[in-house]
Amino acid sequence: MKDSNPPVVPRVFSQYDCWLQARVPDDLDARVAAAFARFRLYAGGRLVDTAVRELTSLARRLTGKQPEMVTQGAPAGAEVVLCDLTGTSATPTGWSPAMTAAIVADGYHIRWDENTGSLWICAVGAAGLLYGSFRVMRLLGEGVCLTQVDVLENPTSSLRMINHWDNMDGSIERGYAGRSVFFDDNRLIQDLTRAGDYARLLASVGINTISINNVNVRGAAVRLITEDHLPDVARLADVFRDYGIRLLLCVNFTSPIQIGGLSTADPLDPEVIAFWAMQTALVYQHIPDLRGYLVKADSEFLPGPTADGRTHADGANTIARALAPHDAIVIWRCFVYDCMQDWRDTQTDRPRAAYENFVPLDGQFDANVLLQIKNGPVSSLFGAMRQTREVMELQITQEYTGQQKHVCYLVPLWREVIDFDPQNPACPGKIAAMLGNGTIEGIAGVVNVGLDRNWTGHTLAQANLYGYARLCWDPMLSAAAIANEWIHLTLGADPTVHDTTFKILMQSRATYEKYNAPLGIGWMCNPSHHYGPSVDGYEYAYWGTYHRADHLAIGVDRTRAPGGTAYTAQYSEPVAAMYDDPARCPQELLLFFHRLPYTYRLPSGPTLIQHIYDTHFEGVEEVEEMIRAWQALQGTLHPEAYEPIAERLQIQFQDACEWRDVVNTYFRRKTGIPDEKGRKIHV
Amino acid sequence: MKDSNPPVVPRVFSQYDCWLQARVPDDLDARVAAAFARFRLYAGGRLVDTAVRELTSLARRLTGKQPEMVTQGAPAGAEVVLCDLTGTSATPTGWSPAMTAAIVADGYHIRWDENTGSLWICAVGAAGLLYGSFRVMRLLGEGVCLTQVDVLENPTSSLRMINHWDNMDGSIERGYAGRSVFFDDNRLIQDLTRAGDYARLLASVGINTISINNVNVRGAAVRLITEDHLPDVARLADVFRDYGIRLLLCVNFTSPIQIGGLSTADPLDPEVIAFWAMQTALVYQHIPDLRGYLVKADSEFLPGPTADGRTHADGANTIARALAPHDAIVIWRCFVYDCMQDWRDTQTDRPRAAYENFVPLDGQFDANVLLQIKNGPVSSLFGAMRQTREVMELQITQEYTGQQKHVCYLVPLWREVIDFDPQNPACPGKIAAMLGNGTIEGIAGVVNVGLDRNWTGHTLAQANLYGYARLCWDPMLSAAAIANEWIHLTLGADPTVHDTTFKILMQSRATYEKYNAPLGIGWMCNPSHHYGPSVDGYEYAYWGTYHRADHLAIGVDRTRAPGGTAYTAQYSEPVAAMYDDPARCPQELLLFFHRLPYTYRLPSGPTLIQHIYDTHFEGVEEVEEMIRAWQALQGTLHPEAYEPIAERLQIQFQDACEWRDVVNTYFRRKTGIPDEKGRKIHV
Repeated sequence: MKDSNPPVVPRVFSQYDCWLQARVPDDLDARVAAAFARFRLYAGGRLVDTAVRELTSLARRLTGKQPEMVTQGAPAGAEVVLCDLTGTSATPTGWSPAMTAAIVADGYHIRWDENTGSLWICAVGAAGLLYGSFRVMRLLGEGVCLTQVDVLENPTSSLRMINHWDNMDGSIERGYAGRSVFFDDNRLIQDLTRAGDYARLLASVGINTISINNVNVRGAAVRLITEDHLPDVARLADVFRDYGIRLLLCVNFTSPIQIGGLSTADPLDPEVIAFWAMQTALVYQHIPDLRGYLVKADSEFLPGPTADGRTHADGANTIARALAPHDAIVIWRCFVYDCMQDWRDTQTDRPRAAYENFVPLDGQFDANVLLQIKNGPVSSLFGAMRQTREVMELQITQEYTGQQKHVCYLVPLWREVIDFDPQNPACPGKIAAMLGNGTIEGIAGVVNVGLDRNWTGHTLAQANLYGYARLCWDPMLSAAAIANEWIHLTLGADPTVHDTTFKILMQSRATYEKYNAPLGIGWMCNPSHHYGPSVDGYEYAYWGTYHRADHLAIGVDRTRAPGGTAYTAQYSEPVAAMYDDPARCPQELLLFFHRLPYTYRLPSGPTLIQHIYDTHFEGVEEVEEMIRAWQALQGTLHPEAYEPIAERLQIQFQDACEWRDVVNTYFRRKTGIPDEKGRKIHV
Repeated sequence: MKDSNPPVVPRVFSQYDCWLQARVPDDLDARVAAAFARFRLYAGGRLVDTAVRELTSLARRLTGKQPEMVTQGAPAGAEVVLCDLTGTSATPTGWSPAMTAAIVADGYHIRWDENTGSLWICAVGAAGLLYGSFRVMRLLGEGVCLTQVDVLENPTSSLRMINHWDNMDGSIERGYAGRSVFFDDNRLIQDLTRAGDYARLLASVGINTISINNVNVRGAAVRLITEDHLPDVARLADVFRDYGIRLLLCVNFTSPIQIGGLSTADPLDPEVIAFWAMQTALVYQHIPDLRGYLVKADSEFLPGPTADGRTHADGANTIARALAPHDAIVIWRCFVYDCMQDWRDTQTDRPRAAYENFVPLDGQFDANVLLQIKNGPVSSLFGAMRQTREVMELQITQEYTGQQKHVCYLVPLWREVIDFDPQNPACPGKIAAMLGNGTIEGIAGVVNVGLDRNWTGHTLAQANLYGYARLCWDPMLSAAAIANEWIHLTLGADPTVHDTTFKILMQSRATYEKYNAPLGIGWMCNPSHHYGPSVDGYEYAYWGTYHRADHLAIGVDRTRAPGGTAYTAQYSEPVAAMYDDPARCPQELLLFFHRLPYTYRLPSGPTLIQHIYDTHFEGVEEVEEMIRAWQALQGTLHPEAYEPIAERLQIQFQDACEWRDVVNTYFRRKTGIPDEKGRKIHV
């Protein structure tokens, strides 16, 4: 007989369920079980129906029984109460009017009533009850005993948005998790089951707005706002409506020509204005609660108002005025730059473009126009426009960060963005504060999902979708706190699993950066698909992204010094002066702001070239450590959790070696300087 | 009133007609006109019908009248006689049996019979009459007076082949002249009018074999040899049959699996053998005169016999045995190498691959197997296999030579290939001799045509199609002679037009090489589409094409010296020794065979780095000269001839500047060595 320990039987796990695993606490408190036997509703409507459906399913898992449903009468002992405070005077024991006043739209207060043994979810409207119900599920998933709960949670922003770059042929621009959930063969998908599951997933973490089609509106997508597709869009909108999520549509600026048959798209042309009004009225007949439009114009070969000598404000306002009667908004992207730059032109500097294009227009945009500003490494545009509504754009899909083959937990990066103060880097939380006071009205995230069974390709990339949504809700959450939540909800409570996954996630971005382009210079990837290393991949291209490495030095001088592009002048003091000074510029941005010799000694100790070699060797070593750590979880984790991640880590290791070797060889060949430590660099 | 010279009225010109312009001699000899009033046929069959159709059309242009047609009786004064010597005893005056014996299959003897005022086209079969008839048209087009003609022309090879890389979706791999003439939407095109015009064009210069689909047989094309498409292929074959051109089909080696539903494609498996026999019998029911199959196997991700541990000979022979009962051949491509090489591997050397893969199999191929060998810069494989039938593959489509946006007359390059003697470079004409004695049985050309109105994108690229066919017919023709023919036929007799075009064509390849990759090192183009400069584009890729440039030196040592890859050992002496020695190696191949410092002084005078700078400046200057010369033809040339070429020359100039600047900047940055002549190099 074989002498062996039986393996730990892994618990239930489904990649598909993400952070909504159908697990039940091992030691459910009897009072909680009792409460889940009856639901009392002081509330109603579609969102409450959804909340009840979710809680009912939860109750059946917890108690094995269908809960009783009560919609009238006074609270009566053990039960779960869904309480819309705007329509009832019922409250839990010890409640005060101040407590009601503290809840904002979409917020909720979850409170265990010890007196009656009941769990109260209180809100000022149905949406808060839906979010509160999902929060109850997450509390259970995180192992919190509900009898201990008394928590008020309000979203910081009212606009918590997902952007899809889905094409109507079913492909996804910068998508790394399979084909589109929404489109196939130039139509909307007819079976919306998966779209419904997706809406549920997003609502469970508070997302309330979604743009469904690529901002590069081309081909069939131009006609999404016509009768060709509006009935289908309306069906999709209805699926999302169950979850409190409103749709946005991306539109092409030349729709007046392409759909309307006009000869111009000039936003000041009366026929163009009439087209937008009429076409938009048609759209709202089909989808009365559409949130509005999202527009990419005069950007990367997409047409816009400048073709007719008009400004971005002219363009945005004409569309905004068509939307205004429907209480809707237009979101206008600021990703505008010269994408046909000549690499020989050293005067033009792409990072300057967004600021230069939009700051002069401050105050000229209509009240229902929001500008969507991409986070750069340190965008100079946030806060520079005092009379313009702003939305921040983050990229959840890992275009430049490993394409969901590499683990790269992005919340720490977003954390830096949110903490950045363009006026004062020493004072973190500035953008969080702008989000808090409404100067920035919300966040848009370019999403990382597709038809892959686990939605995101890499299972660990689910943490980015989760984390993005959590930051939308509360931009003060730490990356570590979000990672803790996600791991617990997704992979369970095993401490080894938790520690290992936590370390991998928290380390992952730094590791990725180590084997990627050094010191903030970026863009050393293969053209077009952006996967894998190519140091000169964009060096002689027209996209405006150059490192200008020669035998002696590398980088672009973006300071106000003679010969610099003076990009730093877009910042206020003392930030501008800090960036101007290589000794004080943050090391991770050094080659973004400065041109320096390879022999330059970094504040951290090594020369610049030695830093390149060191970090690239370290990056690969760290991936090897991740693999070893993950392998130790085999048998502890459910195979559906363990295997796919193990496979992706192997891919990452191969790729990291390629990055290390290509980058090191490139610089070894170019500089002639050997590695001080004598490690293997292919020559 | 304006004082001005009226512009010279340009003559008739149609891009579409290529070298078969419908022009009439200005000064047609009255005796020739008289002869074209009656055709006497000692011949018959489809090809003769085609010849008569062509000559009738010519006669109407020459005389304005429909010629009388006579098929019996003795020669009787002024007439054109089509004389198949195998079926008549009639001959022109002064004919001898030796003259008949001198004509080979497909050849012809055109002779003016002064006695009777008749033009005789004599041949030993219908094909020769067709080719002879087209030759009469070309003689007229070249301005030859037919009363002076007494010419015997025999083709050197019997296999004069065009390869299409057309995909069934209508795209063309490496196609630069529009979409496929044969396919669209995964079917054969139904309207075969254009295919017929194309067949005529090819037959007019002696092409007699054509493969219609891409050698990368994927997707729908796998089923071309099934009932799904065979009726359509048969219709196309019939169109080509009118012009004496037989089809080849490219097949996928795993057809037994993909079509036959078998579990293996092992060529020694009885079921696989039976599949090929049965499927091929089906194919021949539809197209009894199909020339055979063309196969790319175990090459660039296409499957082949090695998957089952079999050799290329095993694979080719199984397919050949299925074809043998139909008197047909299989052409097997030798383009086999490791396309997943690790750039860090400095031992593997791609140029060695074809020789290493195929020479050991010499003598193992069946009698109806032909190996198709690509011309490399100096292929070591030609002549290395003494017991194997060989075909030479040339690339007419300008994949690496400007993609038909740049003018690059390729006949001089092919001339070098044909003149190359791997055993003795001092003795030109070796491959021509091998073609002449049948050691190489024919030539295959990957064609450059598509649905563009002028067939080839760049009108001057028509000269490559023309020149290719002419070399197939007579591999001893000079590049200059072919250029002269083509210019005269296409653009007419104006001496300025002729001189200018001739200079541009003859200069074009050297100019292109000057601004491209230096000294034979190649591959400095953008990955995948291969257009435009990218010095490191393939440097860290898996295709096996590396320059390994560092701060001090560039190139791969392929000599037999220590550290070299010993590729030169595949050549016999004294060639191997010549390539081994940088002082004796032809300069245009220097960096293909050697790794050298930038400061190496070339036999031509300058250092290697200075040579790079000089040639790249010169290349652009030469394009500017071409443009000036061409612009001088405005008003002399028909606008349809002038304008499109003028436009392409502007594109070439822009691109040449880009090549110059990217290559010069790359090496200026990498070496730190300035241009001795102080010209502008962007840093």
